[in-house]
Amino acid sequence: TVSFVIYASVKACAPPLLEFSRKTSHMINPNIRKDEKKVVDFLEVEDLASEKVSFCRCWKSEKFPYCDGAHREHNEETGDNIGPVVIKRKAK
Amino acid sequence: TVSFVIYASVKACAPPLLEFSRKTSHMINPNIRKDEKKVVDFLEVEDLASEKVSFCRCWKSEKFPYCDGAHREHNEETGDNIGPVVIKRKAK
Ligand code: FES
Ligand code: FES
Repeated sequence: TVSFVIYASVKACAPPLLEFSRKTSHMINPNIRKDEKKVVDFLEVEDLASEKVSFCRCWKSEKFPYCDGAHREHNEETGDNIGPVVIKRKAK
Repeated sequence: TVSFVIYASVKACAPPLLEFSRKTSHMINPNIRKDEKKVVDFLEVEDLASEKVSFCRCWKSEKFPYCDGAHREHNEETGDNIGPVVIKRKAK
């Protein structure tokens, strides 16, 4: 009886928990420009103002689309290993 | 007694489940270059071969660091809204 109760309670709670973890495991952008159907950014290289610009790929930057170093906390908290893409102009 | 058993079994399994969902909800890169401590990519604009290049920010592309459209499936499956960053050269 005890094992049945355990079985039943696990059975009851497992599907919603799995659903929850599956869903949140796939959503990447927590809160950036959620009014846009798809967040795409453009850089025209002729407009590159400084020698380089780093674009965020962790979706945690407060200066999105630019990298502000927030990937470090993300990597530490999760064991992930992500970072920006850096667009550079060769030094003159 | 029954409610205690339920309480005990939920108590026992909740922390690892929460840990799991927290962890996977934050990990973004499933399998790209996991041997690297931090995945950073560089483009020197002088090396831009074609008129534009799209960099993946969903970490699901099979042509990473380039976008291959995999963000579409990610967005559909999760309700997310992410897309690439596009580096362009003005048409001549
Ligand atoms: S802050 Fe997101 S990649 Fe650096
Ligand atoms: S495939 Fe990842 S952003 Fe397009």
